[in-house]
Amino acid sequence: MKKETLLLTPGPTPIPETVRRAMAQPLCHHRTEHFRTIVEDVVGQLRRILQTEQDVFLISSSGTGAMEAAFVNIVSPGDEVIIVDGGKFGHRFCDFATAYGITAHVVTVPWGATVDPAAIRVLIEQYPRSKAVFTTLCETSTGVCFPIREVAAVVRETDALLVVDAISGLAADVLMTDTWGVDVVIAGSQKALMTPPGLGIISVSEKAWPVIEQAQSPRFYFDLRRYRDGLVTYDTPFTPATTLVLGLQAAGECILAEGMESVWQRHAGMAAATRDALGALGLSLFAARPSQALSVALLPEGIDGKAFLALVRDEYGVILAGGQGHCKGKIFRMAHMGAVTEADILRGIAAVEHVLSAMGYRECRGEGVAQFQRSLAALKEQAIEGNPLTL
Amino acid sequence: MKKETLLLTPGPTPIPETVRRAMAQPLCHHRTEHFRTIVEDVVGQLRRILQTEQDVFLISSSGTGAMEAAFVNIVSPGDEVIIVDGGKFGHRFCDFATAYGITAHVVTVPWGATVDPAAIRVLIEQYPRSKAVFTTLCETSTGVCFPIREVAAVVRETDALLVVDAISGLAADVLMTDTWGVDVVIAGSQKALMTPPGLGIISVSEKAWPVIEQAQSPRFYFDLRRYRDGLVTYDTPFTPATTLVLGLQAAGECILAEGMESVWQRHAGMAAATRDALGALGLSLFAARPSQALSVALLPEGIDGKAFLALVRDEYGVILAGGQGHCKGKIFRMAHMGAVTEADILRGIAAVEHVLSAMGYRECRGEGVAQFQRSLAALKEQAIEGNPLTL
Repeated sequence: MKKETLLLTPGPTPIPETVRRAMAQPLCHHRTEHFRTIVEDVVGQLRRILQTEQDVFLISSSGTGAMEAAFVNIVSPGDEVIIVDGGKFGHRFCDFATAYGITAHVVTVPWGATVDPAAIRVLIEQYPRSKAVFTTLCETSTGVCFPIREVAAVVRETDALLVVDAISGLAADVLMTDTWGVDVVIAGSQKALMTPPGLGIISVSEKAWPVIEQAQSPRFYFDLRRYRDGLVTYDTPFTPATTLVLGLQAAGECILAEGMESVWQRHAGMAAATRDALGALGLSLFAARPSQALSVALLPEGIDGKAFLALVRDEYGVILAGGQGHCKGKIFRMAHMGAVTEADILRGIAAVEHVLSAMGYRECRGEGVAQFQRSLAALKEQAIEGNPLTL
Repeated sequence: MKKETLLLTPGPTPIPETVRRAMAQPLCHHRTEHFRTIVEDVVGQLRRILQTEQDVFLISSSGTGAMEAAFVNIVSPGDEVIIVDGGKFGHRFCDFATAYGITAHVVTVPWGATVDPAAIRVLIEQYPRSKAVFTTLCETSTGVCFPIREVAAVVRETDALLVVDAISGLAADVLMTDTWGVDVVIAGSQKALMTPPGLGIISVSEKAWPVIEQAQSPRFYFDLRRYRDGLVTYDTPFTPATTLVLGLQAAGECILAEGMESVWQRHAGMAAATRDALGALGLSLFAARPSQALSVALLPEGIDGKAFLALVRDEYGVILAGGQGHCKGKIFRMAHMGAVTEADILRGIAAVEHVLSAMGYRECRGEGVAQFQRSLAALKEQAIEGNPLTL
């Protein structure tokens, strides 16, 4: 029997059957009332998922395209910005700055650490002309969730905009876009939104529009003014990735039927129990302030990272992610976001403990699996007693 | 009974069942040997479809994104280019020029007319520093197929690059990328490639690479150097739209199983018979040099374009396209590309003649349908006698 593959990677994530079915419908044309109604529905869903009443746009591109859209619509050549670089994806904003001739004042955060909002305050005071602060909700490469509420409290008192890459964090980590005061949120379809990759999402606050209107970086496909003009009639400025929009609509229905509070609590519970399980195996966790989207553990001394991932995949059909950049071979990442179930995580943890044992790490005989179940049961009991899972 | 919708629009086009099934597979991760093999296969298919041995890249974006990629990778601020503007999509290159601060020398072609390659030669001689000539294979807004072979014969003798938007023309109109000497071909998934929208395609010649390497327009997501670096291992630089890549692979199998010569002949036959049918209804054709991808007819005096399209849709479930820009309400466009069958076109022509009759145009009693069948039968007989359908 061929092993059925289980994606426990921090994107793409497993796609629910209802999403797959929605995408397999006969194709509809995008310049029709029918499709405009779908776009209107999806935009409404995304507003609730992002906790915003602002404009939300769909861009047919990967998450990086949506990140670049956020960047080029805010800056003009010669501008200054502040970037929190705490991993591969935070660093991408620095790459944009280089490509577009922008001066970046960087808050460098060691991989695995979190950011101190005071460090951002210092940079804003030092460089008050900075147009925006670019940072990350969940830094996918390290599994750290940055304290966006606290960062926003600093930034919203200034003229700078706050741009948050929430691609892998959205719908796993709590994000209150309007309440906290996040000006631009970037998301992607293929993470906790449970849809295949290819669709970027971006929200824009009222504080951000005057900046966008005056920004001088050259842009056409990513020009958010075109998306705003289209949104009046729920049209997209360019042919949208229609099947992915239909998939996102079905996924949005699942998410909102559960409710955002419940979705966040479910992720928090899965994340806490997974971390407990990895701890029970004697593994050290990598993220100082862990995201609820994924758990990241250091590989024990002497365990070859590449061989470990290959065995987990070949013997158990489980796809985990390794480290990126200088963390390659040193950590592994297990996602528990979107449609990943408790049974999926149990399979993932069983695979990890069996492969570690086989590779000469200490004997693990179900300690991780047992701890996951114990922790989750305890968390659920607390929730029943009226104490919501930690958000 | 709800009428089943038939898309006879020049993109999106109907999706074959085999493509839909390929996209409904459980999601695979893109950083795996499995997916690299798929990308390698798709790139190989696209090389055969584009008739090129050069690099071919997949960009997760709509066709416009791929057009912008072609533009920004060639030009530097202050550069001059030559643009053939003969419709909505040719004009889009002028929009890029405005956005990126590029001087455009424009060959303006009236909508519905074709371009004279000599006019391009004159502009190249007049502006010899022009980096490239941007033009269109099939101009979707008018149904005109530009004579790319003749244009290429002019451009390849010069230092300028030839960039061809083949989004709606590829796999319907003949395009011999390498033999003719086209440097950059732009395509999209949702036309004759029979896959949903969301995937751009771009090929790059050896003559183009030194220009791309030196181009100074700011770019990141659309930077073709990143795509070239990735292609060595059949990796994409950013998370690809995996389901669409799987769909494109299935579509490419269909196309290549039929063979490019046969695919082109099939389109040519459908196009010729459709034009004959529209002529039999007394309609004037709009395109001076018609594409094999779609047929465009003028609406008769006194027929309201919007009401006509609505009746064709509501009474017959057939989606045609109206005119764009200043042709709105004056023409209608019927595509016969990709997976559109003879039976589909018969349904479309029947709908057109019934609705025109109902709207007070002359009585049409099957003349269009009969002519389509007669013409196609005659063309097939010629083909059997060894005279291939006109290419």
